[in-house]
Amino acid sequence: MKLSEIGELSLLKTIRRRFTVKSKDVIVGIGDDTAVIKPSGNNLLATTDMMVEGIHFDLNLITPYQLGFKLVSVNVSDIYAMGGRPLYLLLDIALNKNTEQSFLNSFFDGIRCAMKLYGVSLIGGDISSSRKDIVIAATLIGDAKKHIRRSGAKPGDRIYVTGNLGDSACGLALLKRIRKHVHIEKTGEKMQDARCNPPLSPLSKGGIKGGYHESCIMNRASELLTLTSKLSTMGLTWNVVNPLLKRHLMPEARNPKNFTRYATSMIDLSDGLFIDLSRLCDESRVGAKIFMERIPVSSRMRTASSLLGLDAMKLACSGGEDYELLFTASPKIKFKIQNSKFKIFKITCIGEITKRDRILVNAKGKEIPLKAIGYQHFEIQR
Amino acid sequence: MKLSEIGELSLLKTIRRRFTVKSKDVIVGIGDDTAVIKPSGNNLLATTDMMVEGIHFDLNLITPYQLGFKLVSVNVSDIYAMGGRPLYLLLDIALNKNTEQSFLNSFFDGIRCAMKLYGVSLIGGDISSSRKDIVIAATLIGDAKKHIRRSGAKPGDRIYVTGNLGDSACGLALLKRIRKHVHIEKTGEKMQDARCNPPLSPLSKGGIKGGYHESCIMNRASELLTLTSKLSTMGLTWNVVNPLLKRHLMPEARNPKNFTRYATSMIDLSDGLFIDLSRLCDESRVGAKIFMERIPVSSRMRTASSLLGLDAMKLACSGGEDYELLFTASPKIKFKIQNSKFKIFKITCIGEITKRDRILVNAKGKEIPLKAIGYQHFEIQR
Repeated sequence: MKLSEIGELSLLKTIRRRFTVKSKDVIVGIGDDTAVIKPSGNNLLATTDMMVEGIHFDLNLITPYQLGFKLVSVNVSDIYAMGGRPLYLLLDIALNKNTEQSFLNSFFDGIRCAMKLYGVSLIGGDISSSRKDIVIAATLIGDAKKHIRRSGAKPGDRIYVTGNLGDSACGLALLKRIRKHVHIEKTGEKMQDARCNPPLSPLSKGGIKGGYHESCIMNRASELLTLTSKLSTMGLTWNVVNPLLKRHLMPEARNPKNFTRYATSMIDLSDGLFIDLSRLCDESRVGAKIFMERIPVSSRMRTASSLLGLDAMKLACSGGEDYELLFTASPKIKFKIQNSKFKIFKITCIGEITKRDRILVNAKGKEIPLKAIGYQHFEIQR
Repeated sequence: MKLSEIGELSLLKTIRRRFTVKSKDVIVGIGDDTAVIKPSGNNLLATTDMMVEGIHFDLNLITPYQLGFKLVSVNVSDIYAMGGRPLYLLLDIALNKNTEQSFLNSFFDGIRCAMKLYGVSLIGGDISSSRKDIVIAATLIGDAKKHIRRSGAKPGDRIYVTGNLGDSACGLALLKRIRKHVHIEKTGEKMQDARCNPPLSPLSKGGIKGGYHESCIMNRASELLTLTSKLSTMGLTWNVVNPLLKRHLMPEARNPKNFTRYATSMIDLSDGLFIDLSRLCDESRVGAKIFMERIPVSSRMRTASSLLGLDAMKLACSGGEDYELLFTASPKIKFKIQNSKFKIFKITCIGEITKRDRILVNAKGKEIPLKAIGYQHFEIQR
């Protein structure tokens, strides 16, 4: 059924029913002129991010479920980058009136799955029609006892990044070759069911077994078979490709709660390592020296990028959409960070803050200027 | 100069420079991963509204300045409708890369003018490119000592509305006839300069006298002359038309601070009296009886709608975009509301809350069912 057959009022009722807020701090949720929240006493954080069809996403490559999940993640990443706790979500959605209800159901399933993962409540939003492209935006409100700015880096501080860089950009390049939706299935990694299962709507009818549609499982199996044979012609396997695609389609934001106490400055990597590091340096009025060899790159990404004829280091340094964190900390606490008991993802020291110049030390030890290359809107060429 | 020639980084720098936050409660404003705000201690309010080109606005009819002003106003209207105080603004803007910088300058001038009027600070946002249509969204955070919900109306309560209804819808109908931009000039009403002057950017160069571009004044005078003669062929004068256009292009949200203490429920009229009243009744689980004759309609609107061949009452009841407030209050305090010393806009009692049925009493005293007619997205026909 298309949205034009459902109408705005009935749509809003469905959303309201599906997103009942359980937090006792939300006094008024969806359904009034504004949401009303009881403040926690901590400082408040607020951020917003917009995603535009044809610019940020291609509906031939990303499923509505993945899109919903990603929209929440990119906003949570900003709250985490401030050392904060994500709490309340507001959504703006502009949809073509020919959009199918199933699209919206899956999109909201993805949103809800991410909300559960990050402990966020939906408190408000606005649904509108659009003439053509879909535009979605989320505003996320959080709080922080102590917030970490981009501006606190001091010369001598070490520079750290979480996870691996370039996986997401490589995943996007792969998707462009595959040219179709890829459902991110369960891997050996510890993931909650909700996070990786197919986008089954609670509104959908038909035979459901253990949370899966029977026909859905068959389709997925057949899809996976076609995909695997396509990958093998490119010299790739599903095990190599899957985590790269997942990092692009459904990135999980990194919660820095175990190292915020050490961080002097922090930023999330959304447009690329070099451009985002430059932003942090601008705000802190410092320079940086980065050792190319230390930049964490997964072996999967090296394999895939090489088979795709792409430069792995370029993807890692300026590919964008990593949603990893970059932070700085005093050299004195290096040991504590590297050996944190609570570490659930890799943390790598890639260089140090200097007084002024921004320098990249390549594999041969040669120093070259580090340029703020990465994604920028309104550029003629990317 | 087009945005593609300016680039995102330089654009962000300009915005940041122009929107320096002065509030001491904003610890971190634009330029970090999130904004950081010191909470006031009151409950927080949060709302968001999106405006899409071709759906909410036509750039042939509204200037970027007016659009910016209106975006802020429609969000402030939601905060006011909750009995709150607007405080912090976040903006999402998706623009075609061929957009001229002057468009953005004027848009931000309009935003800033409204921010000043309502005492709001810009604390964050996201600028993105779009393939074609412009999409803008604002999230507004406010606070309230006591918030007023839609759900508090009780049978016997009187129903009040602020201002006149249908002016905005009639203004839109007029604009569609005029088919061009109309610069809303000063009228006899008390208005701050900033609110009604032409959108002069602080970045614009050239001869400026007393805040006006000389060439700009000449253009406006010539425009007004053409417009006046066009209006006279329709039997209309500028004095009749101006307030109607203004209510549509640059609506001012109504601050209810002088009567919030009396209000048992409240909603802002954005989609039309009947549909928004029905929403309030739904939430309060009550009925309503509205007296058609009491619905406040300006004489200007009657004149203009009659000349346009439109039904004034239809515009007033379901035209939408009034951004007036509808509230209910106990019959005991009727006198206090009608005679409030601090009243800066008209308040009219249009009916009363009943137990169940929603009834419209027409001019002849006949009772007919009140239908929730108004603007809804995704409808094939409006």
